[in-house]
Amino acid sequence: MANKASLTGTVFLSKLITQYAHIHEKTVGKTAEEYVCQIGVRTGEWIESFYGDKDSVWTVEEYAEVIIDLKNSIGGHFYISSVHPDHVVVKAKACPFGEVVQDAPHLCRMTSSVFGGIASRKFGYGKVSLRKRIALGDSGCEVAIYFQPDEREAGDIYENLPRTPENGDPFKWEEETLLRLNEELKKSDELVMKLLDELEELREQIKIETEKNSSPSSRTL
Amino acid sequence: MANKASLTGTVFLSKLITQYAHIHEKTVGKTAEEYVCQIGVRTGEWIESFYGDKDSVWTVEEYAEVIIDLKNSIGGHFYISSVHPDHVVVKAKACPFGEVVQDAPHLCRMTSSVFGGIASRKFGYGKVSLRKRIALGDSGCEVAIYFQPDEREAGDIYENLPRTPENGDPFKWEEETLLRLNEELKKSDELVMKLLDELEELREQIKIETEKNSSPSSRTL
Repeated sequence: MANKASLTGTVFLSKLITQYAHIHEKTVGKTAEEYVCQIGVRTGEWIESFYGDKDSVWTVEEYAEVIIDLKNSIGGHFYISSVHPDHVVVKAKACPFGEVVQDAPHLCRMTSSVFGGIASRKFGYGKVSLRKRIALGDSGCEVAIYFQPDEREAGDIYENLPRTPENGDPFKWEEETLLRLNEELKKSDELVMKLLDELEELREQIKIETEKNSSPSSRTL
Repeated sequence: MANKASLTGTVFLSKLITQYAHIHEKTVGKTAEEYVCQIGVRTGEWIESFYGDKDSVWTVEEYAEVIIDLKNSIGGHFYISSVHPDHVVVKAKACPFGEVVQDAPHLCRMTSSVFGGIASRKFGYGKVSLRKRIALGDSGCEVAIYFQPDEREAGDIYENLPRTPENGDPFKWEEETLLRLNEELKKSDELVMKLLDELEELREQIKIETEKNSSPSSRTL
């Protein structure tokens, strides 16, 4: 029998989100990460509103402080590793999703898109490199965020993100995003349309050939 | 600027799961509820382990106490309304997902499948009627769970649920469930296979007709 005291809202919600993400990834593959990314971008915009007005200008130091503070507010254990004019590096000893994040490592895209989304909105560009990940068995996380294109390392790039209008809700999902998320199904649809076109064409050919065969001039019997 | 103190792990995780469920439902429709149901059935089995051994026999009263206790452990505000030999009714003033559950009312299927799953495993059958739902704007929730088929009201039925083997992990998803969840994509696949077969058939017909047309005996020129 498990220890009942260990059943809390956070444990339940973490289990739920990691299992949801897990089976979603198992059933639709890579597209599942795109869902996480889209939610992360909006969550970042929503969380930004906890740290000042939309148009307030941030220094790189302020950016670094906000991204670790937000992670710590939601149950992570993050700290600044280094701050440079063009990039910052942060580290973590604990993940907001807890240890169960190992069941759905693509949830790291949430961190990437929250950090990258804020960088993009505040500095015009964000590239996020997830150097170390608790989700993949590392003892801690290490994340670098660049504020301009940089050849030193690869990462997820965030720029030209749509911004929610003043007093709008970042979670009012525009049709376009929903369509994009439905990419997989759409791809199937496109394939189906192509096959249907091809069928139509073949039917036409058959009609022509059959007519040729049945036209009086071609009858030899 | 929002009040920063209001950003907590629970607020974040609730926002995340409701938004995930929301856009999932927006993009794949009804199948999204099936994901929630499957996770709920397993979550119920996992939570059961917090309340005693798998094979322990429960009275109806014990069942009612467990289902409200588990909901309250994870942040809900549930209480027993009435206990009958064949069914129980519980009510709630608050949802474990918080007010944001209104963005994804199909998350109620989680409650239904947790309650129904436990009933099925303990009593062999569970039918859950969600009479009132905060998610739909009601001021509280009211849920009835029947332990045998009953004509009085409709509900989600849970029976013959697969049980996780002793010391097994309810979240080890068997292939079968993942395939079932992938229902939508599978349907597309089946359609594609059918179209491909049809194309093959038409190509064959064209070949036959073309051969007829080009065979010496049919040439009239």
